[in-house]
Amino acid sequence: MGVSPLARVARLVQPHIEKVEARIAQQTAAFDPALEGYVLYAVGSRGKRLRPLLTLLAGGATGKINPEHVDLAVIVELIHIATLVHDDVMDEAECRRAQPTANARWGNSLSVLLGDCLFAHALTLSTNFQNSDISRAIARTAATVCSGEMIQTQRRFDLTLTVQDYLRIVEMKTGSLFSVAAELAAVISKADPNVVETFKNFGFQIGTAYQIYDDCLDLAGSESLTGKTLGTDLRKGKFTLPVLIFLRSASDFERERCCQLVLEEQIEEMIELLKNGANNGALSESIAAGSDLIREAQGALDGIVSNPYADGLFSLGAALCEMFDQLRV
Amino acid sequence: MGVSPLARVARLVQPHIEKVEARIAQQTAAFDPALEGYVLYAVGSRGKRLRPLLTLLAGGATGKINPEHVDLAVIVELIHIATLVHDDVMDEAECRRAQPTANARWGNSLSVLLGDCLFAHALTLSTNFQNSDISRAIARTAATVCSGEMIQTQRRFDLTLTVQDYLRIVEMKTGSLFSVAAELAAVISKADPNVVETFKNFGFQIGTAYQIYDDCLDLAGSESLTGKTLGTDLRKGKFTLPVLIFLRSASDFERERCCQLVLEEQIEEMIELLKNGANNGALSESIAAGSDLIREAQGALDGIVSNPYADGLFSLGAALCEMFDQLRV
Repeated sequence: MGVSPLARVARLVQPHIEKVEARIAQQTAAFDPALEGYVLYAVGSRGKRLRPLLTLLAGGATGKINPEHVDLAVIVELIHIATLVHDDVMDEAECRRAQPTANARWGNSLSVLLGDCLFAHALTLSTNFQNSDISRAIARTAATVCSGEMIQTQRRFDLTLTVQDYLRIVEMKTGSLFSVAAELAAVISKADPNVVETFKNFGFQIGTAYQIYDDCLDLAGSESLTGKTLGTDLRKGKFTLPVLIFLRSASDFERERCCQLVLEEQIEEMIELLKNGANNGALSESIAAGSDLIREAQGALDGIVSNPYADGLFSLGAALCEMFDQLRV
Repeated sequence: MGVSPLARVARLVQPHIEKVEARIAQQTAAFDPALEGYVLYAVGSRGKRLRPLLTLLAGGATGKINPEHVDLAVIVELIHIATLVHDDVMDEAECRRAQPTANARWGNSLSVLLGDCLFAHALTLSTNFQNSDISRAIARTAATVCSGEMIQTQRRFDLTLTVQDYLRIVEMKTGSLFSVAAELAAVISKADPNVVETFKNFGFQIGTAYQIYDDCLDLAGSESLTGKTLGTDLRKGKFTLPVLIFLRSASDFERERCCQLVLEEQIEEMIELLKNGANNGALSESIAAGSDLIREAQGALDGIVSNPYADGLFSLGAALCEMFDQLRV
């Protein structure tokens, strides 16, 4: 098996990614000794570190990657990890990245507080930036991420949810954090306002596309590959893009069948319907929508002075497109 | 019935408390319209607003109460409210202040996220202070509060918990937020470092004493007065000061009886034992410990220039002592 598309891009900033990893691991020391074990467990289950990757590439694309870029990468990843800990509590998830979740190991109460601690610690770190606009933007984004998750939760099992509603939720809960990572990396490099704006938009579109990918993966991936149970979103009443596209063009009969399958938790049958339904594959259409968004983001990089990191951002988009393609089986 | 001891003290800063209330209510506008209702519900269930009261009195004791003091009061109360929302999820509490809790109304998932949103919003507000030391101290304290709660949760049903362990938990989860409220109020007034230190310590001791009071109230209060179910801490395996003092001097027989009662959820019998046990009342001893702490805090105010607000801080201590006395029935 070859190197994953994302790993290829990550090589560009490998030494910096390692610094980020080391810094993340060091954060356990900021907590009470009684809590270090929990924090280490939460931050140690190495994910793709996509947000740090974006941060570092955007930093390198706009100047020299400096310690503040590394700090920013650590902070956005910690915020992301905090939200994952709470997500797993809410989804009653047993496994993440092929490991037991914090809630599976220590129960919901401890995990709610573990998420809170990580969250508060990330925002504490963000107050160390000289420029207080940076800490303000990070805290505001954290609020946006949580608000997006809250709207998503509020609208579970809501068949009136539209594709537009879905996109707004995804933009808030994922696009915003990617966006602030890329934007602030450029701010730290003291880039021109129009360049900052370009990176902000790039992060927003890439983040939104990535969430669409993750949502498609939950329906079309394989459990051995993802390390988590498939169909979780549907089971929890979260209607993601493929489902909404399906419903939009479904006949009354199909729509009714879909509701029935979701309520009866017949998730495999539902996935079959999404892949091969009469509307010719809501999943393919979702993959196409995500890929289009990435190409749009890549296009906006045209105005940016080329260097290996700027090229890396383009490759990051290409890697995500490749990941989308792998879902088309 | 006369005015409550705390309400008498609050009159000193009534117009400012009203500003704080108005500002808290306004915060709903910072959230997505879909979420305003939840936020309004969480912030609207008017508590004692003890942290804002302390903030405003400390502000007035060190200078003129200004808009930054009001901001600080709003922020510490929002952090407090966020932790209450999560507490209620963890305790599966049905009622708070005689109203259904957020989790009772909307379930755990939404309430976890509601707490997160309030928390993130409070920290966003804190980044508006000119002096970034202030936002750093607030974020750090938020992390301390959550860490204290986490240690408490970790040690539920742990019979090896000592009085010292308990005090440390209480200092972290409540003392620290009171402390930072009083300290930063003095910082905002640009008070001398030794004055800032005095207020920091005063807040710390008053906050710790207040938590001891709240813990005693859970065992010795009346449900109609508190608006919540009594004995919740014991039922959840949280051993508070009266229980720990009881266990410290209990005979093997009493200790075993206590464990049995807790495990069998015979909370009323357990409370009886705490009030009238052979060691002559662990509850009275806890009340005495809390009252001592308050008198110590009051004593440290001697070095502060007297004005109506500084006198108000002394009265705040006296009001808490009165509240403790009301538990001795």
